[in-house]
Amino acid sequence: MNSLDYINSPEDLKKIKREDLPLVAAEIRKIIIETTSKTGGHLASSLGAADLAVALHYVYNSPSDKIIWDVGHQAYAHKILTGRKDKFHTLRTHNGLSGFPRRCESEHDCFGVGHSSTSISAALGFAVARDLKNEKHKVVSIIGDGSMTGGLAFEGLQNAGHLKKDMLVILNDNEMFISQKVGAIAGYFAKLLTIGMVKKVEEKVMKTVSRFHSFGSPFGKLIKRVKVMLFPGMLFEEMGFTYIGPVQGHDINNLITVLSNMKDMTGPVLLHVITKKGKGYEPAEENPVKFHGVGKFNAKTGETLKSKAPTYTQVFSNALINLAKTDNKIVAVTAAMPEGTGLDKFAKQFPERYFDVGIAEGHAVTFAAGMAADGLKPVCAVYSTFLQRALDNIIHDVALQNLPVIFALDRAGLVGEDGGTHHGVFDFSFLKYAPNLIIMAPADENELQHMLKTALNSNKACAIRYPRGAGTGVKLDSFPSALQIGKAKILAKGSDICLLAIGNCVQICLKAAQALLKKNVKASVINMRFLKPLDEDAIKEALLKTKKFITVEENVLSGGFGESVKSLLCGTGALVQSIGLPDKFIEHGSLQILHKKYGLTSENVEETALKMLQLPS
Amino acid sequence: MNSLDYINSPEDLKKIKREDLPLVAAEIRKIIIETTSKTGGHLASSLGAADLAVALHYVYNSPSDKIIWDVGHQAYAHKILTGRKDKFHTLRTHNGLSGFPRRCESEHDCFGVGHSSTSISAALGFAVARDLKNEKHKVVSIIGDGSMTGGLAFEGLQNAGHLKKDMLVILNDNEMFISQKVGAIAGYFAKLLTIGMVKKVEEKVMKTVSRFHSFGSPFGKLIKRVKVMLFPGMLFEEMGFTYIGPVQGHDINNLITVLSNMKDMTGPVLLHVITKKGKGYEPAEENPVKFHGVGKFNAKTGETLKSKAPTYTQVFSNALINLAKTDNKIVAVTAAMPEGTGLDKFAKQFPERYFDVGIAEGHAVTFAAGMAADGLKPVCAVYSTFLQRALDNIIHDVALQNLPVIFALDRAGLVGEDGGTHHGVFDFSFLKYAPNLIIMAPADENELQHMLKTALNSNKACAIRYPRGAGTGVKLDSFPSALQIGKAKILAKGSDICLLAIGNCVQICLKAAQALLKKNVKASVINMRFLKPLDEDAIKEALLKTKKFITVEENVLSGGFGESVKSLLCGTGALVQSIGLPDKFIEHGSLQILHKKYGLTSENVEETALKMLQLPS
Repeated sequence: MNSLDYINSPEDLKKIKREDLPLVAAEIRKIIIETTSKTGGHLASSLGAADLAVALHYVYNSPSDKIIWDVGHQAYAHKILTGRKDKFHTLRTHNGLSGFPRRCESEHDCFGVGHSSTSISAALGFAVARDLKNEKHKVVSIIGDGSMTGGLAFEGLQNAGHLKKDMLVILNDNEMFISQKVGAIAGYFAKLLTIGMVKKVEEKVMKTVSRFHSFGSPFGKLIKRVKVMLFPGMLFEEMGFTYIGPVQGHDINNLITVLSNMKDMTGPVLLHVITKKGKGYEPAEENPVKFHGVGKFNAKTGETLKSKAPTYTQVFSNALINLAKTDNKIVAVTAAMPEGTGLDKFAKQFPERYFDVGIAEGHAVTFAAGMAADGLKPVCAVYSTFLQRALDNIIHDVALQNLPVIFALDRAGLVGEDGGTHHGVFDFSFLKYAPNLIIMAPADENELQHMLKTALNSNKACAIRYPRGAGTGVKLDSFPSALQIGKAKILAKGSDICLLAIGNCVQICLKAAQALLKKNVKASVINMRFLKPLDEDAIKEALLKTKKFITVEENVLSGGFGESVKSLLCGTGALVQSIGLPDKFIEHGSLQILHKKYGLTSENVEETALKMLQLPS
Repeated sequence: MNSLDYINSPEDLKKIKREDLPLVAAEIRKIIIETTSKTGGHLASSLGAADLAVALHYVYNSPSDKIIWDVGHQAYAHKILTGRKDKFHTLRTHNGLSGFPRRCESEHDCFGVGHSSTSISAALGFAVARDLKNEKHKVVSIIGDGSMTGGLAFEGLQNAGHLKKDMLVILNDNEMFISQKVGAIAGYFAKLLTIGMVKKVEEKVMKTVSRFHSFGSPFGKLIKRVKVMLFPGMLFEEMGFTYIGPVQGHDINNLITVLSNMKDMTGPVLLHVITKKGKGYEPAEENPVKFHGVGKFNAKTGETLKSKAPTYTQVFSNALINLAKTDNKIVAVTAAMPEGTGLDKFAKQFPERYFDVGIAEGHAVTFAAGMAADGLKPVCAVYSTFLQRALDNIIHDVALQNLPVIFALDRAGLVGEDGGTHHGVFDFSFLKYAPNLIIMAPADENELQHMLKTALNSNKACAIRYPRGAGTGVKLDSFPSALQIGKAKILAKGSDICLLAIGNCVQICLKAAQALLKKNVKASVINMRFLKPLDEDAIKEALLKTKKFITVEENVLSGGFGESVKSLLCGTGALVQSIGLPDKFIEHGSLQILHKKYGLTSENVEETALKMLQLPS
């Protein structure tokens, strides 16, 4: 019998004897490892924060107390402890539990998340709302050291320090970012750990804590001043926070003592907790980068399963390295995603031309604009969904100045199991209207190479968006060659209907055209290649042969490719059906399920064509 | 004879005797005051930074050395000193000098700007490019204390501290933000000024500077450590910068000494300079808020000229205050623009429900999302162009969670003299595709009231965009009433052509319809009110009467309102002409000139209609 069998809520947890809590955490870890080995997920972070989650739910009373997780990929233990243990095996599956906190999933998920660095701002919002409503509950946010490098976290700290609301920010310092340490703050945290102060500091913390009531008096202020000198949290103290820590984050008993003692502190407080990513699962402790976000793996050995065709990421990575060998102006920038974007390989080959700026997409883009303004050719590799964080930098620093920064948008389109916060289905719409920007999407991984070459040759701002995961397995040309900018490629000529496709949807349309041919329907297929400049000539030429068009894109229809085509063909007598994503946030689930549900399949293209032609399907 | 007559470049400046430089600065101030009294502009900031600009161009060699101004509204002296003195009277006029640094205007403007907090990131880009190219020039950025509160500045500082490139960041601390101090950092700076250390510190600085070469040695490190304790720049030191300061920013001679001494320091260095906004012009020194960005004014008295109709900003401000009187859940958030957004009045009435978060638009939105998640009704008043800085927060924190945050987008559409960095002509496009978001634009200031009420009643995320400046002078209803969401208003019925207008373009269309009537053309005029949800029924109903449509919007056409309409009417046989802004960044100039040039006039609507109807104009 497991102790978890008795725990269906934070209240149940409080009935467990304090000395038995490590067992609860161990059981939680077991469930997390077993589940993610089957479903994939953010293993290492969630293991690292399991003890902290147990301590938090032991001390605080969720949902009346508000517990806000930053990024949320460390919140699996929180889910298991808040009534979702029995559904946990459905993690990240369609209609199952989300891999991130979601307000609609549980009253214990008071603020949904997926992107980094939002928790302090949100927590401050909760603290202000509480005070205006004269309520008395506690507000806690838990943020990793990586997330703390984001400018938004800094803005939140600043404002919280200014407003002086009662709130606790827990800095979950797991000694690493998603990959490696970057940024001065991170280096500063690392320094702490090397000076052997942790143990000694813990003792001092408790003494200090017992004195906090006197902080308002001159004597208290003196103590506080001295503390700033002796303790390592000066940065936070200067921002207006009371800093406590660092404390070890895997000693649940001690965490509970510290949290309980701190519970009635007033004003903004920062507790610095040191944890280890992957804690309790040896393969993940040894290789936390590999186990940050995993696909399915063998729970015993930690071996992951691989696909055959190279991923778009790998092809991008290799192509960039090859191009950089003969052009020393090429530099690469990532926002804390070297492995995810494939730039880790570039870093090894060209360490002085590689920049991991931390979780700071805005800075990544403006920094790249600065380099471009002085003659370099920066390539910013950012996930599509995270590029939303740099819109102003793209418009104001890059496009307005017509600077040749290249945006390599990985994970564009649906991403599957990570769900609504991570689907890259808005980039066409939030980039299309930006003047001076060229936007491309390759039909396969070979075309991705050519587009990268095209962008580097163009001396203009370019975005290339490509999907997550394996390519089509197409043969890769040995040398990438530049494409003609704004020129589509006609893949099939037919006069019954014209299929206009962009990006990975070209494959769907080719397949649909083949199926239609069997039904004696001759379809044109055009690989548009460029969302902008749009090849209007190619479309108008197609119009001479047929008045029936289908557009296909893996982006929301609103503001996307289909809308550009409809806008162009309005008034010409053409009939245009657009296939793409609807005006809602798309849930999580496997790509196969989502593609089928939202009609991004060759079958749907075929059926749509037959309907337009008024033929039986 | 003025000394400025001899200065047409930074080289010329260096020929002036050091003791005569204050005269040069005085002459610069005179030109700035005279010009801005006629053209309007950012007076107070540019006066405050005039001495610093003189010192910088005396010590550094622009354009080979890179001088990067943050925001850029303090760079008038820089313009005057770099060959643009004779054109300075054309400041902010069409085809004249821009009010901000622009790369295309001068080789001395190495990085264009207009929005805040970009300069450190850009400077780091220049420093990296220099080193990769083995060049030796200096890189300097000048950033105000207000801009330093932006998360982007923090990201830049962090990354610069990590990369350890030689660069100088000058913190131009003018003792205030655009309005008042907010944020812990700002409070911290203020504290410095009250402890009377400034003078004493200056002496110590020079001693410290002389020792910087030993910072690498253990002894140097000890000194640095002590310095961190004694000096106020701990924050920056902890980020990896060498902090120097504070020094007084109006003593040109001393500034030159300090800058010269620091010139060969290695690694990232921060110089803290204290200046006074409006320095040298009494009305501006006394009321720097009023003189932050001014319209035309009487140079002798400082009196500004006013228009008769209330501005949209004023109407928004009053309406919000009235609504907040009966609904204590309404709270208001601004990102350092209380006067610009009209929230300064709200602040006086409801200080505990008002939040100025500093120049931190991303935080403003996520903070509002947190408040909304706990039951409040936050209204974020942000300029359209600055809301680009919060796109991810809008999508990920507000829309995805379906939280009722209201965005009041002031300065939407063309803004006139501030130009390309400030026109709010993209918001339709960067918001339209966001699921769960309602988007409105009022035809006049009275409708703005009703839309605010509509938004507050909707319990949904809503954006209301309205233009800069005076309203139409329409009579204001005493009580705002909620509109039906997604419902257009038919203002005129005619079956020859249908004019579909949104926002302030409704007025243009009404006027055009009147003019057309005189030529016996009967036009329908529909005030769309909502970009989203679009009133498709109203448009389809209009289609029953006419196949000819004109859409009019003050937004880029790409991804905007016209594209939605064309997309809807594609395949119906309708002919649609869209009037709006082209796919380029719009230059600065008076609204009158720009509206005429880009066809946002009733005359152009009339002419377009006549052409579509094949009638003589």
